[in-house]
Amino acid sequence: MQIAIVLFDRFTALDAVGPYEMLGRMSGADVVTVAEARGPVRNDVGSLAVVADAALDEVGRPDIVVVPGGPGQSEQMADGPLHEWLRAVDEHTRWTTSVCTGSLVLAAAGLLRGRRATSHWLAREQLRAHGAEPAGERVVFDGKYVTAAGVSAGIDMSLTLVGRLQGDARGQAVQLATEYDPQPPYDAGAPEKAPAEIVRLLRSRSRFVLEGVRD
Amino acid sequence: MQIAIVLFDRFTALDAVGPYEMLGRMSGADVVTVAEARGPVRNDVGSLAVVADAALDEVGRPDIVVVPGGPGQSEQMADGPLHEWLRAVDEHTRWTTSVCTGSLVLAAAGLLRGRRATSHWLAREQLRAHGAEPAGERVVFDGKYVTAAGVSAGIDMSLTLVGRLQGDARGQAVQLATEYDPQPPYDAGAPEKAPAEIVRLLRSRSRFVLEGVRD
Repeated sequence: MQIAIVLFDRFTALDAVGPYEMLGRMSGADVVTVAEARGPVRNDVGSLAVVADAALDEVGRPDIVVVPGGPGQSEQMADGPLHEWLRAVDEHTRWTTSVCTGSLVLAAAGLLRGRRATSHWLAREQLRAHGAEPAGERVVFDGKYVTAAGVSAGIDMSLTLVGRLQGDARGQAVQLATEYDPQPPYDAGAPEKAPAEIVRLLRSRSRFVLEGVRD
Repeated sequence: MQIAIVLFDRFTALDAVGPYEMLGRMSGADVVTVAEARGPVRNDVGSLAVVADAALDEVGRPDIVVVPGGPGQSEQMADGPLHEWLRAVDEHTRWTTSVCTGSLVLAAAGLLRGRRATSHWLAREQLRAHGAEPAGERVVFDGKYVTAAGVSAGIDMSLTLVGRLQGDARGQAVQLATEYDPQPPYDAGAPEKAPAEIVRLLRSRSRFVLEGVRD
């Protein structure tokens, strides 16, 4: 089972590596990082590079595609090689997935028309412009299209996919092997839960959050 | 504030990238990936490479050090350049930290003697051989030494550190920006919670879990 993790300049590292870590622990998983060209791809803040081991045209028939988000998403919205590749491989995927603003790329490529989908909470409404219907769950399934909310949500999405593909026992084994027993020190991970002033702060800085400028 | 993320061959990707993503969102954070030599470092299963942007001798005074775990940890237990570097930078760090079996490396370097620490649940007892006292919390603080349980626990550790260093509002803002509102599909992330047969399965395969051989 081949899993293609898409990389592009200024992606968000955890968007890609969360799913990588979970999906890669499936039985028979063959994970490949893929980008327009082989070689190191820098993340949103420039201090982490992940190597793309394959160019798009070297990965023809992945079973699962994961498109991460990140500030660089804004440069992946125009039709071009990535969109063409996404549409081509989507004809044969078992699951076509995204994390965070990666769903905007899938939507811009025309793959989410009329479908329910999610994205980073600050970007979710942007899905409408591309014909998708924003949905509020952390992980949204619509047929074989699976979209996760912001950054860390890719972990939950991927663990869910492990279970659907290889059964609950495998999903639980992966959860236990990665000791995924989350105990965040705050309960502020969603706008409905965070203190109002924190939500306001991030809304007022949404351009910075989504575009990755950090102060 | 400089944060050094240590890489070595056959590290576990999420161990390193979870903390990277959270700590890197602090105000003034300057994160650097560091390994014995600059260049791509392959993870446990070989299908993901993260670039080390600095060699150990180029990072002299980080404020925070993060040592990930992974199967390659077993090759980092002998005294050598990494241990020497860890001991040297530890003299000036604000926090010296690890994720998963990274604590065994810290312990082998002599930095956890007489201290409470944790590790991946399957490896935790190994800390005793290096003079540390295994502790059962997901994130263990002992002075400036902070150790996290397996793989995903580095996310909770790092978010906790963000709050301690820059206040709860910043911690909550980072949690909301990364939408870290975990909703795993199972409650099997700790041996006390997982079905007994899953725990038995992983115990019987602990060599494989810890050494990264995946079936």
